[in-house]
Amino acid sequence: MTPSAAGPALVEKLVLANRILYRHGVVDGFGHASARHDGSSGHFLLARNMAPGLVRREDIVTFDLDGNALDAGGRRVYLERFIHAEIYRARADVRAIVHSHSPSVIPFGVTKQRLRPVFHMSGFLAEGSALFEIRDVAGDTDMLIGNGRLGVALAAALGSRSIVLMRGHGSTVVGASVEQAVYRAFYAEVNARLQLQARQLGKVTYLNAREAAKAAATNDTQLQRVWDLWTQEIGDVG
Amino acid sequence: MTPSAAGPALVEKLVLANRILYRHGVVDGFGHASARHDGSSGHFLLARNMAPGLVRREDIVTFDLDGNALDAGGRRVYLERFIHAEIYRARADVRAIVHSHSPSVIPFGVTKQRLRPVFHMSGFLAEGSALFEIRDVAGDTDMLIGNGRLGVALAAALGSRSIVLMRGHGSTVVGASVEQAVYRAFYAEVNARLQLQARQLGKVTYLNAREAAKAAATNDTQLQRVWDLWTQEIGDVG
Amino acid sequence: MTPSAAGPALVEKLVLANRILYRHGVVDGFGHASARHDGSSGHFLLARNMAPGLVRREDIVTFDLDGNALDAGGRRVYLERFIHAEIYRARADVRAIVHSHSPSVIPFGVTKQRLRPVFHMSGFLAEGSALFEIRDVAGDTDMLIGNGRLGVALAAALGSRSIVLMRGHGSTVVGASVEQAVYRAFYAEVNARLQLQARQLGKVTYLNAREAAKAAATNDTQLQRVWDLWTQEIGDVG
Amino acid sequence: MTPSAAGPALVEKLVLANRILYRHGVVDGFGHASARHDGSSGHFLLARNMAPGLVRREDIVTFDLDGNALDAGGRRVYLERFIHAEIYRARADVRAIVHSHSPSVIPFGVTKQRLRPVFHMSGFLAEGSALFEIRDVAGDTDMLIGNGRLGVALAAALGSRSIVLMRGHGSTVVGASVEQAVYRAFYAEVNARLQLQARQLGKVTYLNAREAAKAAATNDTQLQRVWDLWTQEIGDVG
Repeated sequence: MTPSAAGPALVEKLVLANRILYRHGVVDGFGHASARHDGSSGHFLLARNMAPGLVRREDIVTFDLDGNALDAGGRRVYLERFIHAEIYRARADVRAIVHSHSPSVIPFGVTKQRLRPVFHMSGFLAEGSALFEIRDVAGDTDMLIGNGRLGVALAAALGSRSIVLMRGHGSTVVGASVEQAVYRAFYAEVNARLQLQARQLGKVTYLNAREAAKAAATNDTQLQRVWDLWTQEIGDVG
Repeated sequence: MTPSAAGPALVEKLVLANRILYRHGVVDGFGHASARHDGSSGHFLLARNMAPGLVRREDIVTFDLDGNALDAGGRRVYLERFIHAEIYRARADVRAIVHSHSPSVIPFGVTKQRLRPVFHMSGFLAEGSALFEIRDVAGDTDMLIGNGRLGVALAAALGSRSIVLMRGHGSTVVGASVEQAVYRAFYAEVNARLQLQARQLGKVTYLNAREAAKAAATNDTQLQRVWDLWTQEIGDVG
Repeated sequence: MTPSAAGPALVEKLVLANRILYRHGVVDGFGHASARHDGSSGHFLLARNMAPGLVRREDIVTFDLDGNALDAGGRRVYLERFIHAEIYRARADVRAIVHSHSPSVIPFGVTKQRLRPVFHMSGFLAEGSALFEIRDVAGDTDMLIGNGRLGVALAAALGSRSIVLMRGHGSTVVGASVEQAVYRAFYAEVNARLQLQARQLGKVTYLNAREAAKAAATNDTQLQRVWDLWTQEIGDVG
Repeated sequence: MTPSAAGPALVEKLVLANRILYRHGVVDGFGHASARHDGSSGHFLLARNMAPGLVRREDIVTFDLDGNALDAGGRRVYLERFIHAEIYRARADVRAIVHSHSPSVIPFGVTKQRLRPVFHMSGFLAEGSALFEIRDVAGDTDMLIGNGRLGVALAAALGSRSIVLMRGHGSTVVGASVEQAVYRAFYAEVNARLQLQARQLGKVTYLNAREAAKAAATNDTQLQRVWDLWTQEIGDVG
């Protein structure tokens, strides 16, 4: 069933998310952000196949949870829309997703190291990052989540965590809102950089599970602060 | 007793401090700078709860040393105003404070390494950085200095030094003026980066205590040079 | 035989390539990009001797495969045009070349380490980078490919690969189009940074040969996405 | 004897040098560039005490080789003008000097490692960097070259080389022209970054003495290329 149009505020928020992620180096010419449809939990919004830094309102397309575009109108869509589709299907709590090749996170995935919370800003890493090894489920591939079966496997690897590292590829972060998903994608990158440097200095005291959970809860009350900054830097999205 | 309004020059200086710290990557969407009230040593100025990079004159609020806002007018204030309140109470020599998650400093805190002066610009690190481990005073927390008791403990850890690293959180730098506190926050970050790199090359010859003290004294006569640069880059703060 | 003028679209593309490579830090004041002439496979286009970040349409000169400029009109040309000439002669499949001192790649050349594909974006590194040691062919030189004989030796070292590291100098990347050569030069630099960091974390799982080949094939279908971003950022090239 | 006014082209070049060095991160709020007077070999030009990024024509002051300002008109001058004075006295071949705290170079000085030429752009490092340990000549100081005696010692440590590292302080680079000194200061920083990274990868093959000398000679014929870029980026210096 075709849902009614998504709310304009959500569409604008998703456009902003794309621009913010590019401006702050979480995505480059590749990577994508999505939001669950605010009028239908069985649909989500994602830009057509394009660089996130250029996304405008009219580039946002609606997809169902099988990865079918409802209103692409012949425009090319992302090969990896199944990342989003299958995570939205598996995780009712998720309302926004960021897939990126965020640079400092990649070295952790390819060495099968976990991201762990270095500081309170990354309390959402309490359980550590999950890891997805595509070889285990599909042998030698082009590394991309190009169909539903791979999307299902990725969602399974993610489990209940907030981030899954994808070996030789990138990572995917989930959130309960667009703001939270962008926040987490940004601070996963920051945390990775800090974790890499801290390891060079000596034994690292990470936040323990209770510290991380408490910090995450407090941070969630402060998301508007950084969202205001980031959106004001982007300005009008046209 | 309610103090008279702070001097407009001090308010402008504090606004500039916030903007400079963001522009130069010492703070991101979080972190804050304060100044002791120039008309009442029992009060201090601090922005309302917002990203430092967006602070304008009208966002500056007056607080007493218990962390109570006098003129917030219902606006949200920072959870961690107690960092400022308790350090101003404990240290009569301190007239400005910067709390940040300055990235290169974090790895030192979480590995319990001291910042030491690599070069003359960071002579203020002569005694090395102090370290605050919040677990020692409050067990598992959200890592934040969210009440006066934690503020007292942080101020005690700082002692007479110029900077205290906060494990799993960030750091706090103090100064005898807004310019000096901003200078120190900026060069603590620079020094951390240099110290991390120098350690990779071999045995580091740090400034000894007398070199550091002499360098710090000379640098204090040159603060205006860099303040002129930084403020001119910011331009009019509106 | 003098070819007719190159197509204006190709000339514009080459100007954009120069500007993009500077904007994204692949080249600095030095380095150069070329394209095989679209009307004569025995000629190629390359800017006159100048910083790539300043190149305009009128700076593009036509060369033959001996490195002779046809229309320089007395303007100085690059000392290292033989890099381009001899690779175009040796590799019929190559239609664009980027020579740079891209910073993260240099450490691999001087330690004789191979670049290997850390993630799918650098599937073109499947076979690893080739290495050129100029001492082996010419003893102690100024390190530059200043004549045809050195160009021939460099092309031989490159062989059928997509990138050759030049010890103590830089690297040269080839592509089947201007877009592909720019993409590869950009992601060779990104990959080098990732590879350096990943090695610090532990044993790296690189893409294997089949993964890399498949990823490269898929990426080639997505080049327009990043090219649109990069060209829009440059704007009008005058 | 008071020299006639320096040529306006030289003054402009020195202003540009200051701005370029700031724009490219070689200097921050501190550091300075000078040029030998083009009408009197016993004098040199240096800005008044100010951030290099703000220097304009009218800020350039003439000094004699004892470090006396001829036309400061009461304006404050740099404490470290003796770096310049004594090197100009000792080295007739030197026509421009850059003193900086260029970040990647500092770790080499404090660990008493030499900069060595990683690639052809830094052929001027052929002999390696010299090292100045101020403790050896003056015990515990504020680390600054604040008088002629220290300037003499620094010039002696420099000897006939192109760069001297100053432990716990920074470095000083000399050139036969403003362009060359700026080029060398810029590429000393680049080389330091490369050298640090290359060491992490394995055994480094540096340029040998003959390669470095030849590369340096060739590069000197290409200085205009990068100078054109850098000056065009700065634009009009007012």
